[in-house]
Amino acid sequence: MLKSLWNRYLPLLLSVGVGVGIASLPLPHGLDQKAWYLFAIFVAAIFGIVSKALEVGAVALLAFAVATVSGVLSLPQALSGFSQAVIWLIAVAFLISRAFVKTGLGKRIAYHLVVLLGKRSLGLSYGLAIADLILAPAIPSNTARAGGILYPIAQSLAQSFGSDPETGTARKIGSFLVKSVFQCNLITSAMFLTAMAANPLAVKMAADLGVELGWGAWALYASVPGLLSLAVIPLFLYWFYPPELKQTPHAPDLARKELALMGPMSWQEWVMLGVFFLLLTLWIAGSYIELSPTTTAFLGLAILVVTGVLSWDDVLREKSAWDALIWFSVLVMMAGYLNEFGFIPWFTENIKVYIQDLDWTLAFPVIALAYFYSHYFFASNTAHVSAMYGAFLAVGIAVGISPLLVAITLAFFSNLFASMTHYGTGPAPVLFGSGYVEVKAWWLLGLGISVINILIWLGLGGLWWHFLGVW
Amino acid sequence: MLKSLWNRYLPLLLSVGVGVGIASLPLPHGLDQKAWYLFAIFVAAIFGIVSKALEVGAVALLAFAVATVSGVLSLPQALSGFSQAVIWLIAVAFLISRAFVKTGLGKRIAYHLVVLLGKRSLGLSYGLAIADLILAPAIPSNTARAGGILYPIAQSLAQSFGSDPETGTARKIGSFLVKSVFQCNLITSAMFLTAMAANPLAVKMAADLGVELGWGAWALYASVPGLLSLAVIPLFLYWFYPPELKQTPHAPDLARKELALMGPMSWQEWVMLGVFFLLLTLWIAGSYIELSPTTTAFLGLAILVVTGVLSWDDVLREKSAWDALIWFSVLVMMAGYLNEFGFIPWFTENIKVYIQDLDWTLAFPVIALAYFYSHYFFASNTAHVSAMYGAFLAVGIAVGISPLLVAITLAFFSNLFASMTHYGTGPAPVLFGSGYVEVKAWWLLGLGISVINILIWLGLGGLWWHFLGVW
Repeated sequence: MLKSLWNRYLPLLLSVGVGVGIASLPLPHGLDQKAWYLFAIFVAAIFGIVSKALEVGAVALLAFAVATVSGVLSLPQALSGFSQAVIWLIAVAFLISRAFVKTGLGKRIAYHLVVLLGKRSLGLSYGLAIADLILAPAIPSNTARAGGILYPIAQSLAQSFGSDPETGTARKIGSFLVKSVFQCNLITSAMFLTAMAANPLAVKMAADLGVELGWGAWALYASVPGLLSLAVIPLFLYWFYPPELKQTPHAPDLARKELALMGPMSWQEWVMLGVFFLLLTLWIAGSYIELSPTTTAFLGLAILVVTGVLSWDDVLREKSAWDALIWFSVLVMMAGYLNEFGFIPWFTENIKVYIQDLDWTLAFPVIALAYFYSHYFFASNTAHVSAMYGAFLAVGIAVGISPLLVAITLAFFSNLFASMTHYGTGPAPVLFGSGYVEVKAWWLLGLGISVINILIWLGLGGLWWHFLGVW
Repeated sequence: MLKSLWNRYLPLLLSVGVGVGIASLPLPHGLDQKAWYLFAIFVAAIFGIVSKALEVGAVALLAFAVATVSGVLSLPQALSGFSQAVIWLIAVAFLISRAFVKTGLGKRIAYHLVVLLGKRSLGLSYGLAIADLILAPAIPSNTARAGGILYPIAQSLAQSFGSDPETGTARKIGSFLVKSVFQCNLITSAMFLTAMAANPLAVKMAADLGVELGWGAWALYASVPGLLSLAVIPLFLYWFYPPELKQTPHAPDLARKELALMGPMSWQEWVMLGVFFLLLTLWIAGSYIELSPTTTAFLGLAILVVTGVLSWDDVLREKSAWDALIWFSVLVMMAGYLNEFGFIPWFTENIKVYIQDLDWTLAFPVIALAYFYSHYFFASNTAHVSAMYGAFLAVGIAVGISPLLVAITLAFFSNLFASMTHYGTGPAPVLFGSGYVEVKAWWLLGLGISVINILIWLGLGGLWWHFLGVW
């Protein structure tokens, strides 16, 4: 009993200890006391998130309580996070994505792509990747896309071809499909601001440092390297992790059967489809007609609720939205006040002294790669982004790299860096847990794919961004 | 199919029609166009809430979307509601109250009072009333208190005495207990800022008109008339709606048996009890030590989550909190901007012309009674408060009544006015649905009790408030 209590509370005690430790250090020169205390609370929170002391939201709640009760933040300051546009964009997107799942439209799209491309194993993996790409802009939970929609389809396809880890037939086709679904999901997550929960967190942190990045700009910058990655990665897996079965003539039949079972598109699916196109159109057009993507998201959700595609109860039950609302608001708010209280400027000033003579062409890859490969130590994109994105961006800017270039590179890497381990992002444990892919293969292929992704995104991506005037 | 669609959407269409109608009226002199449009959206929303076009939260969502897409409100303006302290006070209080139910502490307190006072029917009703009073400050859902905690106890007591509407024995004791639980619940709801969801809405609307009302002040003003009401109402019911059974010697035994089944206080209950006392202490002391009741609430919730009394999943599943967060933020925000855009000042200026010669001693009772008895037309306290509180308070202030006097009278009446019908507030349909009380008795007794409550709160209450310097 005592031992289990001890195990349960050890990471929490350590987090608190880290916070208290930092807070009791002598105040560094040139820094406000409040900024230092807030930094201590922030680091303690990040430590708590990374060490899984409590759920991310619970850590955020605790940090909020400590900051307000101690007076480090006034209540209005602490509550200000809850009215940030970017937070409601993600919360409302979570609510909208519920309708994608509820109406079955997500599944239907995936099955149609299997019908279209599924005659060969390689085509199947592309079909699932394209389905993921289509769903990505409106489903910010990459776990919901890969784990909730695509994995069940990949699994049922694999089993229909007699590929099952239980019977030693995983490599027949299941291993290839599962690994491909996972890796492509990371790429689609990198391609849209609304395709992964921590993307807007990066955008907000960049905005705090003066780098603006809208929905359309994100999609534009990511489009070219993203599409190339999506084309290359399944091919890489097909070569280095080949399915035994190359032809899958029955896959389209199976998908057709499932579609027949689903019957014709329901009116709810039509409404969802309409809302989806409306969202895409207004998100893309948004920067020209000065319509915030958040306003667009609210409009889409209102349509789904008024038409009854989503009941109000569906909305209230979508826990992921309320979870994101809490942790996201508190993290964004703390990061914002670290800047406002002068901590980030102070930090950057001090870093500058050491790195001002560094050439940016050397500094840039060092920063980018250090950010990328440190993900071996993280079990969530959110934890990694909140812990390191702001600091690494600040350093990059201080060295003299084009701020936008660092901002987007780190933002895209915040998704791609999850390719390596079986615990690095939400869908990883789900898909790894299927048993289709061994640990060793998962890690080796992941490492290889990380290299390919980095080459594509910094290489072709770099050219594309240069063409667009980013640097 | 078409007919049911028509029935479903008629109230919604009417609401939209009302909004469009108002918006297309010529702009009144001296008013900004935006203020008028916002007024149209606000009235349409209230109409939608009162006519139950959609759930309150869904109406709020729709109003939000219309206001932002049309540009009547900028996105930051519209989102500002989500960082109001009073909104998080109520949302977090909902989360905390979940722990009261989950740990069983609420039930335990009620059973202890039955042991203490339950030897006679009248004592039983007082016991349940006191339990409600104890739970009221930390359970802002009056439905959860009366319907969720006390009604099941009252019902099981009644049935143990062989009183059941099915067998024609309702009046034996069940009718009396159920009606008493309902009426006392309205009184306890009026006694604390955090005892009913719409109370903070009234406080926020009052603040918009310059009347500040804190947690401690509310409790102080309500204490004397509230306690008298709690003493008188069960007695009134005992006389005019007497239970056939006057002695209930077995009730304490039954309660003891239930307590024995519950076993000794769990550590979770102790934590909850500690948090409860902490909340009460800091809420009462808050105005002296400058600690916002919202900060206190966050602290209490953080303790419950860190100790594991509430899991993070419990928090995310507490739909009532997220519901309140949405509708409350949007209504408060719209009401606030009606004021800021100049609508409320304009409205008050224009009303003044007609009523400036009115004596306040005449105007005050007219305003108070009109506010009270218009509740015959409302099916929720929230709908009534959002529709009428602000306007009635503005008129009262314009006539020259002490602003604080109108504000607290209308605020307390916003709970007491639900005594009359079987649909006027959340617990009413639940308790009426038990079948223990006939419609006619419900309405007649309710009317009588409304008169008694008004006399007590304006009479003794008026003296008490005069003594405290309110007028």
